[in-house]
Amino acid sequence: MADDHVQSSGRMQAYSDAIFSIVATIMILPVAHTEIPKDKNLREVIFYQLLPKILIYILSFFVVAISWSAHVWLFQIIRHADDVTTLLNLLIMMIITFLPFTFTLMGTFPEFVLAIVLFSVCIIVLGLVQALVVLHVFRNPQTMEESIRNSENMTAVRNALLLRVLVNAILCTFAAVFAPVTSVISYVFLVMILFSPNIAVQLSKLISKCSGGRFQMSQEVVRRGKSYEMEVNKERVECYSDGVFAIVATLIILDICEKDIPSRTALKYEYKNDLVAALDHDSSVFLAYFGTFATVGLLWYIHHSLYHHLQRTSRLMTMFNNFSLAMIGGMPLAFKLTSLYNDTDFYNNERVAIQLSCVIMFLASISQLAIFVTALFRPEQDLTDSVKVGGQSHYYLLVKLLVYPTVSIIIYIISLTSDVLSVESFHVAQLGTPVLFFILWLIAVKIQRNVQEVL
Amino acid sequence: MADDHVQSSGRMQAYSDAIFSIVATIMILPVAHTEIPKDKNLREVIFYQLLPKILIYILSFFVVAISWSAHVWLFQIIRHADDVTTLLNLLIMMIITFLPFTFTLMGTFPEFVLAIVLFSVCIIVLGLVQALVVLHVFRNPQTMEESIRNSENMTAVRNALLLRVLVNAILCTFAAVFAPVTSVISYVFLVMILFSPNIAVQLSKLISKCSGGRFQMSQEVVRRGKSYEMEVNKERVECYSDGVFAIVATLIILDICEKDIPSRTALKYEYKNDLVAALDHDSSVFLAYFGTFATVGLLWYIHHSLYHHLQRTSRLMTMFNNFSLAMIGGMPLAFKLTSLYNDTDFYNNERVAIQLSCVIMFLASISQLAIFVTALFRPEQDLTDSVKVGGQSHYYLLVKLLVYPTVSIIIYIISLTSDVLSVESFHVAQLGTPVLFFILWLIAVKIQRNVQEVL
Repeated sequence: MADDHVQSSGRMQAYSDAIFSIVATIMILPVAHTEIPKDKNLREVIFYQLLPKILIYILSFFVVAISWSAHVWLFQIIRHADDVTTLLNLLIMMIITFLPFTFTLMGTFPEFVLAIVLFSVCIIVLGLVQALVVLHVFRNPQTMEESIRNSENMTAVRNALLLRVLVNAILCTFAAVFAPVTSVISYVFLVMILFSPNIAVQLSKLISKCSGGRFQMSQEVVRRGKSYEMEVNKERVECYSDGVFAIVATLIILDICEKDIPSRTALKYEYKNDLVAALDHDSSVFLAYFGTFATVGLLWYIHHSLYHHLQRTSRLMTMFNNFSLAMIGGMPLAFKLTSLYNDTDFYNNERVAIQLSCVIMFLASISQLAIFVTALFRPEQDLTDSVKVGGQSHYYLLVKLLVYPTVSIIIYIISLTSDVLSVESFHVAQLGTPVLFFILWLIAVKIQRNVQEVL
Repeated sequence: MADDHVQSSGRMQAYSDAIFSIVATIMILPVAHTEIPKDKNLREVIFYQLLPKILIYILSFFVVAISWSAHVWLFQIIRHADDVTTLLNLLIMMIITFLPFTFTLMGTFPEFVLAIVLFSVCIIVLGLVQALVVLHVFRNPQTMEESIRNSENMTAVRNALLLRVLVNAILCTFAAVFAPVTSVISYVFLVMILFSPNIAVQLSKLISKCSGGRFQMSQEVVRRGKSYEMEVNKERVECYSDGVFAIVATLIILDICEKDIPSRTALKYEYKNDLVAALDHDSSVFLAYFGTFATVGLLWYIHHSLYHHLQRTSRLMTMFNNFSLAMIGGMPLAFKLTSLYNDTDFYNNERVAIQLSCVIMFLASISQLAIFVTALFRPEQDLTDSVKVGGQSHYYLLVKLLVYPTVSIIIYIISLTSDVLSVESFHVAQLGTPVLFFILWLIAVKIQRNVQEVL
């Protein structure tokens, strides 16, 4: 019966990944829902009104991503999850889902002690619950991953794991303690969260040294924690990324459903019961929706092709991936601005909106390329044979990865030099990109046939 | 190289499941965001203002769920997805994501021809793209599932599949054609979509008969299409359910982030820069959040325990599951009402909000129980050994499944008979339920030890 209460932990991880990814991305909505007057200079709006909110979004995205990677790391030790682990994990998810609130509060009132303390308490409780999971798993070794169960010094492994999950809690304790004195020191501690994996490694060395070897840390776990070396479970990276791509696609339609369906009274008095005219009034929104969806979908497609050929994902790659996802999470903002400034002549706002979209597309796609380039440094470990230099799909994948950086640079340059570029033509270009990928596929198949004929 | 462009279709399916589940659930937001004046009779508000919107939400949830099950059915034939299939699937996702808009439009203006035609065109395009996928896969048999590739009459299998994916398109063509004449007939055709799997079976029999056997339909595929018999891929059901649970949990916090953080000016003038007082003003919202999250999380936990012990999921079970998920998607509404009517004395609104929450919780959990009861009718095929009648975990799972129906009935009855029940105590009860499950686990472990000692 004991074994029977124990369930494979795969589904629990997939569910956690979904929550993490939605929580990380949903923080774009306060940015995208900012009231922007149509007749103001968009460049000024971006710098004075949007930029602070965008920075908070990116920071919160990375805080959630760091918590996610700690979660991935923790659950690597668990092979099967019993009921207690599952319930504790739900508690972790409850705190994670609450993070956006405390983070927004801190972003709105950075100088208030309460805001810092509330955020810190969340991270401390998170660390404590994760520590409980570690302790529970080590009391029930049958739920553990075999490589860890068979390791020589279990206590050392446990101590290293406990330190790893408690590092953020320790940093936040300091942040909370210093908050009433001066918030600057608190924020120094909070920023250190972004480097917590490295801090954990240094701290474990320090503890080993100070205790004269009494508190031994597992070298294996310490090694795993080293920043570049650390390998991240590929399936979970894919699951997490899928969540971000999926929620971005649906956040856009949500806005349309809430805002672009006229009310019955508006239809009666403004459009004289002519639904066609009412929808035509918002027609630019639909073009913007299909264009944005095409871009998000194709970036997923490239991500899918790339990760299919990765054999191993290092921490550096995951950092690039997180940055790419954070940018893709910005697509609802690009959608909003391009559909808002359709055919307005104020201050070139239309072109600024297009340029911002290009910057987002460029950063998202260039980080995908960076993942591939990182992998090319260690092709033997990281890549499948066919995409290594000289492999038969090497150039196909490379060209796929280069499409969006190239397209976004070209559109950006056109928008700088010419007046012809409108939001409509930009969205039509977005909608045309799938055709480009289809042509690429045709060429790849053609080349393959020729090669086979030569052989 | 051909094989190299071909990628396992698992990730594509998981991504599609995520999009389907978010699209299905996100339609609750127009319901949850309805402006409700605090001083009106909630019972009247529910019947006159909310009920039509709730019905649209449930209908749209089922339309998306039907499309999802057609998608599951279609991709059962694909073992590996090549680039063309992946791109076509992205096109399918684009249409699926657009469905909520056309559906909301139809819900707001049911008598307008344009609304019916727009929705029909979406479903028709969806059917055509799915037909393209079928044709592409049959031209590239190396991407096919082996059991189908080895089947004797490939053309018959293909015809049956084409008919299955085109049934909805045919129904919608009729709906669109009749829309200018009379919308009633159109709606009859649209409602038939909910029964499309059965219609496909009957239609295939009819075609076989009329053509005198020239257009042969595969008996195997036809048999798979029969309503009760049809087996649904369990992994995809889990993936789809996870998506719904995850988005519900995060939709709630999204509302809090957008509405319950005071602006700087409000803080200055209304609360005299006292952040504690400002947050205390919304304190009931936080209790409501944690209570609702606990309920959603535990319903996921029960779902997880149940599906862990299912060996096979029939279409009937999936229907119960979809109904349960549609109810769980209603939790943001329960959250909103209970946090809105905290300590108001108008018309017993507080108690009505609690009763509505109980109804949602009861329907969600009783459908989970229905899944288990359905499985008990065919224990040999559907259940693992330990949860069959007489199995060692049978009662443990049954008690788990009974907790929420019982708790919600008890709270409902208390709310009818006594005045003591407040929204606060309701949320505290929600937060206390995890403890109940922990005690259940302790008892189960205890019994198991006793049994082992006796043996």
